Amino acid sequence: MIIIKAGGSAITKKSEDFTPNMEVISNIAKEIKNAGRVVILVHGAGSFGHPIAKKYSLGKGYVDEFQLKGFSETRSSISELDTIILKALMQNGLTPVKIGTFSNFITSNGRIVEFHKEPLLRAIELGLLPVFTGDLVFDKSRVFSILSGDQIVSYLSKLLKPSRVIFGTDVDGIYTGDPKKEKVKLIKEVSEENIDEIFKFAKSTGDASGGMEGKFSEIFSIFDLGIEIDVINLTEKDNLSNALQGKVKGTVIKKKNI
Amino acid sequence: MIIIKAGGSAITKKSEDFTPNMEVISNIAKEIKNAGRVVILVHGAGSFGHPIAKKYSLGKGYVDEFQLKGFSETRSSISELDTIILKALMQNGLTPVKIGTFSNFITSNGRIVEFHKEPLLRAIELGLLPVFTGDLVFDKSRVFSILSGDQIVSYLSKLLKPSRVIFGTDVDGIYTGDPKKEKVKLIKEVSEENIDEIFKFAKSTGDASGGMEGKFSEIFSIFDLGIEIDVINLTEKDNLSNALQGKVKGTVIKKKNI
Repeated sequence: MIIIKAGGSAITKKSEDFTPNMEVISNIAKEIKNAGRVVILVHGAGSFGHPIAKKYSLGKGYVDEFQLKGFSETRSSISELDTIILKALMQNGLTPVKIGTFSNFITSNGRIVEFHKEPLLRAIELGLLPVFTGDLVFDKSRVFSILSGDQIVSYLSKLLKPSRVIFGTDVDGIYTGDPKKEKVKLIKEVSEENIDEIFKFAKSTGDASGGMEGKFSEIFSIFDLGIEIDVINLTEKDNLSNALQGKVKGTVIKKKNI
Repeated sequence: MIIIKAGGSAITKKSEDFTPNMEVISNIAKEIKNAGRVVILVHGAGSFGHPIAKKYSLGKGYVDEFQLKGFSETRSSISELDTIILKALMQNGLTPVKIGTFSNFITSNGRIVEFHKEPLLRAIELGLLPVFTGDLVFDKSRVFSILSGDQIVSYLSKLLKPSRVIFGTDVDGIYTGDPKKEKVKLIKEVSEENIDEIFKFAKSTGDASGGMEGKFSEIFSIFDLGIEIDVINLTEKDNLSNALQGKVKGTVIKKKNI
């Protein structure tokens, strides 16, 4: 089993609110179908979630009643993105099923503390393709919190021990800095020897779900389980197909002795 | 607290597949908003669910792999209806939140045996308007099963002890027969004295989620709890408003000594 994280920055247009990147979504669906592997797909909310989360300060947890409107709007908007993704998967002959993040997870201080796992386990057993999304969830200390797709991936990695985890983003892998801002170098391999160095480059990007620092800490906990993590660019056709077949164009993060 | 069941026959057009009845949905939203009461809304899937359920024989539970396509399609189609309803509620100033039926309920032989209730209880506490739908769920004996909105209503009635339950349909209440087929009389009041007689008229209508017989058995179990059930016509404007204020135009089902 392989867990695929399709980043919000790849599947939605960050510069246009509530706009899916249909080309990328359709390629993901085709490439998963062609690979014929058992996968779980976790996607980010991208521009279907972040603008509302920001407007209503939902990242801080409950502040006042005014946020309830934002709560409803965010969940409904993310459902629309889900529907778009599910349809693309079905159009390509896959049988996806959405496992509700809001309905199945409870966090405390932003970290998952409860997961109603039966629907997921039964969906896998039945041969359906489980699809998760980053979403708002109830939180035992903050009333609610934003649960990132990245945290879901690291939680599911512990639970299901996938053979690999593929993080799909809108850049070619992990760099020695921010490739959108400075001249940097792609790092092809990360192991115990250089993983601490990599963390130095993880700077907050202001993303509602925690930015690069949050992402790296989830990646680190998967790395710690001895599972290979591949970071690839989902906006380039065939990258996912190739990665699913073990030919990674991007960054491979893996303990050497595994 | 009042639980409202909006029947699939009222909120969708049964004669046109995958077509919402926008006028009815919009009226429901307005009338809930104006009433200012704490409510839970449970809706049926109507023509967004039944045609696919029928095509793939989903009502029987798992038969073969061919049904997986129907499973994905049904759940995705029902999500679309949900989004339409959530948007109508939001447009009228309400703050709804979908509580996932598929994600939260597990049945056995078609009856609810598990409910992950925390998201619902926290949604109520926070002042959100919980919305449920009839949907496919996993089933311990049949692999999956269709969970009707009616059964959800009777389950939630036991759990939450609402002051009243309103069943909204596309007819004026409970009749002495099928008002669409024969000349019948509306029954205005049902109590211990005549409830058995009413059951005689509950004939199967071939509906994917159990038809009138199923509906009556859920109503009976709510009646048994001593909770008043009002059956009204949701396709007529102001009926819901009036019922929410206690002025029921339809059938009132209630134990006399309560």
